[in-house]
Amino acid sequence: MPKIVDHDERRRQIVELVWRLIAEEGIQAVTTRRIAEVSGTSNGALRYYFPSKEAALTAAFEYVVDATNRRADRADAHRHGLGGLRTLCLEIMPLDEERRAEARLVINFWQQALNSPEKAALHAEIQQRWRAEMTARLDEAEAEGEVVAGAAGAATVDALASFLLGLQIEAVLAPGYATPERQLAQLEEFLARLRLRPSAG
Amino acid sequence: MPKIVDHDERRRQIVELVWRLIAEEGIQAVTTRRIAEVSGTSNGALRYYFPSKEAALTAAFEYVVDATNRRADRADAHRHGLGGLRTLCLEIMPLDEERRAEARLVINFWQQALNSPEKAALHAEIQQRWRAEMTARLDEAEAEGEVVAGAAGAATVDALASFLLGLQIEAVLAPGYATPERQLAQLEEFLARLRLRPSAG
Repeated sequence: MPKIVDHDERRRQIVELVWRLIAEEGIQAVTTRRIAEVSGTSNGALRYYFPSKEAALTAAFEYVVDATNRRADRADAHRHGLGGLRTLCLEIMPLDEERRAEARLVINFWQQALNSPEKAALHAEIQQRWRAEMTARLDEAEAEGEVVAGAAGAATVDALASFLLGLQIEAVLAPGYATPERQLAQLEEFLARLRLRPSAG
Repeated sequence: MPKIVDHDERRRQIVELVWRLIAEEGIQAVTTRRIAEVSGTSNGALRYYFPSKEAALTAAFEYVVDATNRRADRADAHRHGLGGLRTLCLEIMPLDEERRAEARLVINFWQQALNSPEKAALHAEIQQRWRAEMTARLDEAEAEGEVVAGAAGAATVDALASFLLGLQIEAVLAPGYATPERQLAQLEEFLARLRLRPSAG
């Protein structure tokens, strides 16, 4: 009987190795030869899963985005209103060692995306999806009086999404400053201001 | 008479070329040989200014940070209160082609900083300096009643600085979405909320 290989599972295993390798060593240090070595795959078999280092990097980026979404679903699969928005943000934020490693992978991806329209488009698509969820949660929060009228505007959601991007950089390049406590204080400050009413002054 | 070379000026010219080269082609594509070629410098002379490609990248990062600060000083050398804070933010934001090119250089620097403690420390130091100026401007705004009491807290300043970092990424990877108009709307939204009073509800 021929050996039965679960290709989806094998691909997943290799992607898991690839993203950690790039996160630790940087994209420049990672070659397809190195990926083959570390994953115990022949160069030929590796090409079956990933035709190039570029394809492996893109798969690694998609893997960490999926990991973030899976964590958010585990925390609360029925995210709703302001609490649901907070849950999503908390899972995007690089609050622990695992998520700082994911942020390192993502920064490598961004740099490669500077000269790759396909990678830039993928980044833009992921951001668009997260902004759509944030908008839905803020619309619920507004409808239920958790935040003031108008808090769910595009500028608010855009600013929140940009803020979360910036945290990825701060958490890995200035971890001594951007501690989990400081990150959480920033999120709470941002959300608290959505509950404030226009000043009479 | 020996040829007189203004080394500071020559160094500045090379750095100007280097940052544009890295911004356009990415750090991986730029070698010291390439820098020597483009700047019309011998390899030996180039080593006098920059002992390595790493040193050239760091100099290029410092150059674009200085360019930002010079722009802010030209816009208003006596920045004060909320207006002064807005001026600084507007010059950090990637609102035009030149500053999107600067953002591309900076994203290359961040990726290299992932595996360079010295580069990460330089990034952290620059952020710390900008946060210190933002805090001073918000303190003035608070003292003069431009924003509500407590608006100048560390969490507000940290969130604003993170937001500005995130914009660098959005503006170059998703320029179709993160237009100057949308970036400006986000900043105004952020600043407007500092003027809001706690809800009675």
